[in-house]
Amino acid sequence: MNITGQLLIGATEEPGTQNPIFAVNPATGTRLEPAFLGGDEAQVEKACALAEAAFGPYRNLPAEARARFLETCADNVLDLGDALVERAMAETGLPRARIEGERWRTVGQLRLFAQVVRDGDYQDARIDPALPDREPLPRLDHRYRKLALGPVAVFGASNFPLAFSVAGGDTASALAAGCPVIVKAHSSHPGTAELVGRAIQAAVASCGLPEGVFSLLFGSGRQVGASLVAHPVIKAVGFTGSQAGGTALMAIAAKRREPIPVYAEMSSINPVFLLPEALVERAEAIGEAHVASMLMGAGQFCTSPGLVIAVKGEGLDRYLASAAATLEQAPSQTMLSPGIHAAYLDGVQRVSSAKGVQPVARSQSAEGSCQCQGGLYKVAANDFIGNEQLVEEVFGSLSLVVECENADQMFDVLAQLEGQLTGAIHAAEGENPALVSRLIAALELKVGRIIWNGFGTGVEVCHAMVHGGPFPATSDSRTTSVGSAAIERFLRPVCYQNMPTQFLPSALR
Amino acid sequence: MNITGQLLIGATEEPGTQNPIFAVNPATGTRLEPAFLGGDEAQVEKACALAEAAFGPYRNLPAEARARFLETCADNVLDLGDALVERAMAETGLPRARIEGERWRTVGQLRLFAQVVRDGDYQDARIDPALPDREPLPRLDHRYRKLALGPVAVFGASNFPLAFSVAGGDTASALAAGCPVIVKAHSSHPGTAELVGRAIQAAVASCGLPEGVFSLLFGSGRQVGASLVAHPVIKAVGFTGSQAGGTALMAIAAKRREPIPVYAEMSSINPVFLLPEALVERAEAIGEAHVASMLMGAGQFCTSPGLVIAVKGEGLDRYLASAAATLEQAPSQTMLSPGIHAAYLDGVQRVSSAKGVQPVARSQSAEGSCQCQGGLYKVAANDFIGNEQLVEEVFGSLSLVVECENADQMFDVLAQLEGQLTGAIHAAEGENPALVSRLIAALELKVGRIIWNGFGTGVEVCHAMVHGGPFPATSDSRTTSVGSAAIERFLRPVCYQNMPTQFLPSALR
Repeated sequence: MNITGQLLIGATEEPGTQNPIFAVNPATGTRLEPAFLGGDEAQVEKACALAEAAFGPYRNLPAEARARFLETCADNVLDLGDALVERAMAETGLPRARIEGERWRTVGQLRLFAQVVRDGDYQDARIDPALPDREPLPRLDHRYRKLALGPVAVFGASNFPLAFSVAGGDTASALAAGCPVIVKAHSSHPGTAELVGRAIQAAVASCGLPEGVFSLLFGSGRQVGASLVAHPVIKAVGFTGSQAGGTALMAIAAKRREPIPVYAEMSSINPVFLLPEALVERAEAIGEAHVASMLMGAGQFCTSPGLVIAVKGEGLDRYLASAAATLEQAPSQTMLSPGIHAAYLDGVQRVSSAKGVQPVARSQSAEGSCQCQGGLYKVAANDFIGNEQLVEEVFGSLSLVVECENADQMFDVLAQLEGQLTGAIHAAEGENPALVSRLIAALELKVGRIIWNGFGTGVEVCHAMVHGGPFPATSDSRTTSVGSAAIERFLRPVCYQNMPTQFLPSALR
Repeated sequence: MNITGQLLIGATEEPGTQNPIFAVNPATGTRLEPAFLGGDEAQVEKACALAEAAFGPYRNLPAEARARFLETCADNVLDLGDALVERAMAETGLPRARIEGERWRTVGQLRLFAQVVRDGDYQDARIDPALPDREPLPRLDHRYRKLALGPVAVFGASNFPLAFSVAGGDTASALAAGCPVIVKAHSSHPGTAELVGRAIQAAVASCGLPEGVFSLLFGSGRQVGASLVAHPVIKAVGFTGSQAGGTALMAIAAKRREPIPVYAEMSSINPVFLLPEALVERAEAIGEAHVASMLMGAGQFCTSPGLVIAVKGEGLDRYLASAAATLEQAPSQTMLSPGIHAAYLDGVQRVSSAKGVQPVARSQSAEGSCQCQGGLYKVAANDFIGNEQLVEEVFGSLSLVVECENADQMFDVLAQLEGQLTGAIHAAEGENPALVSRLIAALELKVGRIIWNGFGTGVEVCHAMVHGGPFPATSDSRTTSVGSAAIERFLRPVCYQNMPTQFLPSALR
């Protein structure tokens, strides 16, 4: 399949009219063809009008038809074969195994949501039958189910060119809910986006769906992205990216005549607590595992462990020695884009130059373009507390170890943090249970997922996953963007009172 | 129990320091003692600090303890006896039967949520067990449950001095979720608010709960209300009132460092469709029933039927004659406050002077203070369409009948409407099923509840109720403010990964 650089609007393709976007191979700095011209207002309008027209028929499809469409999308993504893998590798610098793993996850998500649609539980059907003899007043029959919100704007994420991009988790859950989707492709992997977009476009056609179920637009976030979020047809937004980007979309959505929900997954430093007995038992193993986690994907995961919190002492010193030795042997890695690499260098500079911060170890350096030389630093809790610069995310392989005077001070450090996607606890059998319980209770208020003896990297796509958390981890802590519960973001309830069976939705008959 | 005019902050009471508020008996114009001095910033701060301190212990209470607290609140409200009923009648002008009915509903809501807490289903527990042998990677154990968001600010509603005020649906559902509540009393029924507030304060004490579980503040929305919504401790807002008030709170919430959800139930004109066969079969009965519904509570219900849509002809003429005859015999009614009465008069003027609007009937007039003389008007659909003034809510007994040229034009009228709480369909057995299905599909996108052969007034408190709808009916169409699903507004999910059983929350063991 050729990559043409055209917008996919419903069943058609057409070139944009605005500034061209080119992908860049971050490992080489080479510009990749073709040019992707950005879309204009009229093209946003056209995609929105098609989505509006498609919404009625699409949301009322039988469950089986919607499930088969999701499965067809999955099949078509797989059918892109190695062309997709190679283009994604070239555009992101990510290794083959990672891209193939992400493709597996993307396809798995689409198939999981097909099953969610077939099960139908997501509609949360509730029936309160009539009670004609109730005193003082009879009760009428009331029935409740959830239905689709309307067309959804999805923003592709730079760090997941497949699993949180054109056919990623936001798209899959919105389509499963019955919402047409308009994707604003991330400008760092437009070719990957077009290939996957064509796979969905073909699925829409072969399943006989209205063309407006899916469109793919290229262009800048400030133009195409902002226009989409402001458009009256759009009823919800899915976004994974920076805090600046997410809060900008939230502001646009809040200023609309009809404000709409924005599901923005933004920034998190994912605190990791090392409890005393765990350090006694296995400080070295934790150090190795931590470094492995922080190096995954060059640290370009939302759940990368950026902060380690522990009481100072011999155990923590053993952990630091182990982590340093592991990190120093690790090669540098290619980051996703020159922009992300530049921001990483700024972040390293910000952390390393902060008061009281000391270097522990760096991974190996390399000459190439966009190289991430992972960094491990440490700081005393007394210097960490009150320094707001140190609680901001550095996107990339960087961890800061906070050395506390005692266990109580670990809670002072946690209190300074804003909302997080994950928090991890490393503990041993002999750990003080009161300390553990207190830590869990404190983490419950700060994070969406609490991990026992592990790290946040590796987000399972399952029913019980929460990839969410209080602001600024996300814009809406009531939701998750990974796992089957992600569909709830795109639904709203409707009650049917005293309705004859023949006119009830099938889930309520 | 004496009414003292003091703020209830945790277990204490203290006078405010700002401008005094007095209730006014709307039927007589008489000022009611005592004065309620508005709270100041320090008092908001004190209530918030107590709520924050109470949150941890309160959210972790055993279900049975939280359920018993809600039931104690219900018992204590009942124990206020006739003093509560008389004060509420004096402050609102509502008749005894209505106030007693509302007390029954308020107590019923508290007890329903006690049952919801005991059942525990609201936690939406999900368990994905470990799959150690899964390929290519093993799956760890993941468990999910919902927990309380944090302290909630609740704004008392003018039109429900009991059921949507201090111990009303927002308070009951937030307390059930495990959230401390700070109520900003509505200034039109402060004495009623204080009595109920003392009932809850006593329940907090007798149940041995931390005092910050509940506080009651008096003062203006622009001062006390705005300070509360902006306070970092507050994690969600419940509001029932005007669109101007609700959107002001939404703007404050959106501008916080940590934006929070605002559940504002605002304005709705609740379209009622009269289909052709229904008019043939029972035009007169529908006319009588419609007038009875629009006169309920002087039309001061969010679900009052403000718009009737039908195809013109003999059937509609029969309906109009019946409705007119019924309305003309109805006495005037006392409205809730001079401010609401003045706004009603403005609304009647706005509608009655609009192009093409013709008077059909008024109810009887009366000389007293704050009298609502219900009004029925009609307009041709050609004049309705494009006139934005006619889609705005008039709070009070007013209905506008839109006469359409044909069935298709009914959909043009509906398309002009913004989001609504309810939509009603009056139909007979011989109705064209395609027309009915098309109407239901169109209403599903506009309303939270679709009523068959009835009216939206009379909101059942049950599991399947949706008292919600797209903006501006509410600020968040994904939720309901009445019924057991209202608890979901105050919850967020947390996932526990690989957690030993002893540290899991009880719902997940």
